[in-house]
Amino acid sequence: MWYELAADALDREACARLDDADPLAAQRAAFALPTGVVYLNGNSLGPLPQAAVARLEHAIQHEWGRGLVRSWNEAGWFDAPRRVGGKMAHLIGADADEVVIADSTSVNLFKLLVAALRLRPGRHVVVVDPHDFPTDVYVAQGLERLIRGCEVRSLDGGDEDVVQALDERVAVVALSHVDYKTARRRDLAAVTKQAHAAGALMLWDLSHSVGAMPIDVRAADVDLAVGCSYKYLSGGPGSPAFLYVARRLHEQFASPLPGWMGHAAPFEFAAEYVPAAGVSRALCGTPPILSLAALEAALDHWHGTDLHQVRAKSEALCELFIRLVEERCPSGELQVASPRLSGERGSHVALRHPHGYAVMQALIARGVIGDFRAPDLMRFGFAPLYNRFTDAWDAAIALAEILVARSWDKAEYARRRTVT
Amino acid sequence: MWYELAADALDREACARLDDADPLAAQRAAFALPTGVVYLNGNSLGPLPQAAVARLEHAIQHEWGRGLVRSWNEAGWFDAPRRVGGKMAHLIGADADEVVIADSTSVNLFKLLVAALRLRPGRHVVVVDPHDFPTDVYVAQGLERLIRGCEVRSLDGGDEDVVQALDERVAVVALSHVDYKTARRRDLAAVTKQAHAAGALMLWDLSHSVGAMPIDVRAADVDLAVGCSYKYLSGGPGSPAFLYVARRLHEQFASPLPGWMGHAAPFEFAAEYVPAAGVSRALCGTPPILSLAALEAALDHWHGTDLHQVRAKSEALCELFIRLVEERCPSGELQVASPRLSGERGSHVALRHPHGYAVMQALIARGVIGDFRAPDLMRFGFAPLYNRFTDAWDAAIALAEILVARSWDKAEYARRRTVT
Repeated sequence: MWYELAADALDREACARLDDADPLAAQRAAFALPTGVVYLNGNSLGPLPQAAVARLEHAIQHEWGRGLVRSWNEAGWFDAPRRVGGKMAHLIGADADEVVIADSTSVNLFKLLVAALRLRPGRHVVVVDPHDFPTDVYVAQGLERLIRGCEVRSLDGGDEDVVQALDERVAVVALSHVDYKTARRRDLAAVTKQAHAAGALMLWDLSHSVGAMPIDVRAADVDLAVGCSYKYLSGGPGSPAFLYVARRLHEQFASPLPGWMGHAAPFEFAAEYVPAAGVSRALCGTPPILSLAALEAALDHWHGTDLHQVRAKSEALCELFIRLVEERCPSGELQVASPRLSGERGSHVALRHPHGYAVMQALIARGVIGDFRAPDLMRFGFAPLYNRFTDAWDAAIALAEILVARSWDKAEYARRRTVT
Repeated sequence: MWYELAADALDREACARLDDADPLAAQRAAFALPTGVVYLNGNSLGPLPQAAVARLEHAIQHEWGRGLVRSWNEAGWFDAPRRVGGKMAHLIGADADEVVIADSTSVNLFKLLVAALRLRPGRHVVVVDPHDFPTDVYVAQGLERLIRGCEVRSLDGGDEDVVQALDERVAVVALSHVDYKTARRRDLAAVTKQAHAAGALMLWDLSHSVGAMPIDVRAADVDLAVGCSYKYLSGGPGSPAFLYVARRLHEQFASPLPGWMGHAAPFEFAAEYVPAAGVSRALCGTPPILSLAALEAALDHWHGTDLHQVRAKSEALCELFIRLVEERCPSGELQVASPRLSGERGSHVALRHPHGYAVMQALIARGVIGDFRAPDLMRFGFAPLYNRFTDAWDAAIALAEILVARSWDKAEYARRRTVT
């Protein structure tokens, strides 16, 4: 292990020593983090990479401003969805030509759910987890109205939930790898194998795991995947999403959104749609180039990063935070909602508290930024590229002080909106 | 008329005098146009508004960099699709709450075509023009495979093409207001009336007219509309598209892409999808904030612009260019492909030439930027906010010189990709 926590005598200095010994410590300087802030919400929106500032400046002034329409070729805008997808692929264990960047996670999920139903003719059931991020469930529900015979089946949440939901009517199982609320992590390979054993395709939403741990879609034999690029990847607010289709499906796969960017020859302006080869046919309309440029800069930063090292630090940070919370916070009202075993957890820690919203507002007022999910969940994301062991310390101690003083109920907290 | 062309004795000085008298002349300074370039491709990608530079800088450094996840509330990111849509609405004669900015034109067209089929139960035909921009036709074609019974009917291009295609099976007529190749303009109100007379809904793609002329969807009783924001509006490369739903349809309208941003209460994270009120339910996934920020700055610039003045200048610029082409260019190989009557034309001029690709490359090499559409069409877009009468002069004279000297065939022209 790179990161060894002391069995006893844990204090801020011990955390600072872990930071000093951290092989990823130098990465933090690559991000524009404001001073006085302990940022534990990279699981929602990753901070600004310094490299994105220069990249955007270039895209705005040079490519758009001076290059104008010529930049579609000369600055590589036209190829950006494929090129940037290729730069993301290694983070999930895919080949460069199995991933594109396009649209939002919701829209990409729609494309791949329909594609999966087409790849399994005669099967009409889509299996989802009703506790997954709502948009995933909504998009699946939308198919029931759109496609005759399509039926959404919800998992019951038990230990054997996926297996129990499977039968010969299931076309595709669509699940989040890591739960957006609790950080519960499903076993990518095992669940994929279960789906395959029932003849179904497996579609993973990797939004809450990509960039926080090694993912190997090839080893796990994953068919399809989607995910956000603005969380651990730091691609920028609402940066376009990714979409993965396993090579073995490239020939048969068909998108229900046949836009011109997914055409085999977009600049022929042909009357008939002919899908591009491979995953490119999942592209649809003209991509948002400025948002893509920021994402590309963010991904360039990931080049050469050891995801096993990232994961080791993620586990250590989360374990440290949980331990400190348990040691320092008043027991009773506060509960750890995330799995206690690192192997079952993603890279954030969820804590339940009946006044969770107000407690989180009190933390934010002290510069510790996590977020809140109704009705009672506080989330603390640990992003190994920039979070420090002293961040975990500072957050836990601030939380303990707020809870001890019950200072959350002294303040006024108006707005309830935050974003996953 | 604001712009009077001399009946005779037309020279560059006469054009310069028109520029001097142009009430829109001051607008040009609002755009970052490179020196030495005559930019006639704003019908494909509008130039960088100066205001977008500062707005993007703020969005990057202040909102993303320092505000981090808090900016979803504090910087108004969450409301941006509605707020920016509201700022666009006046350009098409809609109310602020009838327009949102979301996704691409292709994806928005998909949403509205399916919504239209649902609004006309028992009708299964979608009428399209096979000469419209391909993505519109592809998306419609995609519905045939997706929705049982759905059928795409193509116009035949004759004088009475829309009327002849209509019957009691038609749910929706989806057409471009201005043709992306020839600039042929359809009569918004008359065609909408024809569709309504047959009991069908009317869906307009306004990509090639918005920002170039007054559009009044309310007066024309238009049901649905979509369009690009990166052409005459100068929203930036691939800036997200707009989508309009007439208020009278807000109650019944349903999107086939029910994402969390279109939920009545997205931050309740409820298990069931409940559509937001009005056009907001057309939103789907998380929007690309940086691209939206540039678009917002571009739209702020349009505030107070008189679109009748814009149109008058557009007509004068196009007429001047056509007249100069006819007077100065060798006759024979070159043909005006756009309608000769201003009232039947959008804001670009298309010229046919058997060596159009090479001729356009020769023009671009001289700093006159238009574009080429296979097999033989050169397009010259005239954007009244920044194009000058001397631009039309310089472009026409450069074209004449190239054609007289036949200098296009002396060069090597490698790449054929440009973007509409």
